Amino acid sequence: MNEIIKQLSNRKSIRQFTGENVSDEDLELIIKTAQRCPTSVNGQQISLVYTRDKDKIREIARLGNQEKIAEADVFIVICVDFNRTIFAVEQTGEKHQIDKSAEGVLVGAVDAGIMLNAIQISAESLGYGTTAIGAARNEPDAMIKLLGLPPKTFPIVGTTIGVPTIQAKNAPLKPRVPIESFAFEDKYDDKKVKDGVLLYEKQMKKFRVDNNMNYLQSYCEQTASYYKNIYFRKIEENYTKQGFVFKD
Amino acid sequence: MNEIIKQLSNRKSIRQFTGENVSDEDLELIIKTAQRCPTSVNGQQISLVYTRDKDKIREIARLGNQEKIAEADVFIVICVDFNRTIFAVEQTGEKHQIDKSAEGVLVGAVDAGIMLNAIQISAESLGYGTTAIGAARNEPDAMIKLLGLPPKTFPIVGTTIGVPTIQAKNAPLKPRVPIESFAFEDKYDDKKVKDGVLLYEKQMKKFRVDNNMNYLQSYCEQTASYYKNIYFRKIEENYTKQGFVFKD
Repeated sequence: MNEIIKQLSNRKSIRQFTGENVSDEDLELIIKTAQRCPTSVNGQQISLVYTRDKDKIREIARLGNQEKIAEADVFIVICVDFNRTIFAVEQTGEKHQIDKSAEGVLVGAVDAGIMLNAIQISAESLGYGTTAIGAARNEPDAMIKLLGLPPKTFPIVGTTIGVPTIQAKNAPLKPRVPIESFAFEDKYDDKKVKDGVLLYEKQMKKFRVDNNMNYLQSYCEQTASYYKNIYFRKIEENYTKQGFVFKD
Repeated sequence: MNEIIKQLSNRKSIRQFTGENVSDEDLELIIKTAQRCPTSVNGQQISLVYTRDKDKIREIARLGNQEKIAEADVFIVICVDFNRTIFAVEQTGEKHQIDKSAEGVLVGAVDAGIMLNAIQISAESLGYGTTAIGAARNEPDAMIKLLGLPPKTFPIVGTTIGVPTIQAKNAPLKPRVPIESFAFEDKYDDKKVKDGVLLYEKQMKKFRVDNNMNYLQSYCEQTASYYKNIYFRKIEENYTKQGFVFKD
């Protein structure tokens, strides 16, 4: 098993940090390395706004309604950035259209996910821990203001970075849904997906008992607790305000 | 520089393959490894449909209008899968809502990007080459039919996997926009973004000359050639057909 497979196979979200710093050199290397990830049509419609300012990180934690964020040493917000591509397209005398389409919304979101994962893998290879933070979308208007984001950009996801505590580092790996219910050759299999959920539910309940994690919700419980609500309600309004349109 | 930073720093999209096979063991390891990547609220709202069937890969190339895809040995489609989470939420007696919101569309797309990157990094660590294929969205209705996808799922992005030719492996690394125009401390800087575009445009033109790549478009030319059009026009229609709503 090579080093990369080994690291990826042992990945877990880290929410407890020692408070030690991410060095300037490491942060630069993480960002520089992640920037090599692919973007659709090499459009590079992603920008990062990072902060090491404890007050700003606390403010992001407050906006996201997740106090654990405040423990991180660095927070990076991954922003969809059609401000860059609009300026690029203007140089040719053409008119940028993709920001006003469902395709534009999707391509930005997919590329943000790619960048997020590349940042996290780079950071983890240097010994840091990370957690992806969807709650960067909890209060988009306030986040846009905090980061000084112009029209045609959107703060779509974030990540913490910090030095993991030993306890967090050694926490048991949560199982995943059975692989035969996750990856299909040639055709999606609805029965396998549903059987997979039922089996995984049992595995997660056993995992909870085996690891004395009474506070842990089972897969179905946790998924329901989020997905029975539309927990971030200002997305469409703020996409519209920022000049995006989900059509075509 | 550790092995992971080294690999990520040298990443490039690979479009020329030798035709050699991705072994069954490696494909399984790639998928198993990638599945460890994070998903929002551990919802695991992503499924993969992969194919090694040359006819199917040719059909995907045709649907995506990208003949190069047909050279790959494996094609993986990354699908947003709320079919799984709906079934999970039903087990608790609650009603799944997130699929009918802008947040649901975004969380699926971001998680698909994360998974795509994890698949590609795993595959590359085993010596394979990949290219991310947004054109999986070119004909969503036909793709949905080809893969047998049920309602509440969407084929959002794909990746090729194959053994890279030596020439492709040794191709020069394309520069990225200047790092000071890509990553900002605390505040987004519009001037730096625009200056970055202008500098990068010159760098890409020099890169084209230095590497005798006359066929290569500059950054502004290439971005304009795509983004002056809404090049995938059936996204919103097919999201709606699949039972998604971009609202709230």
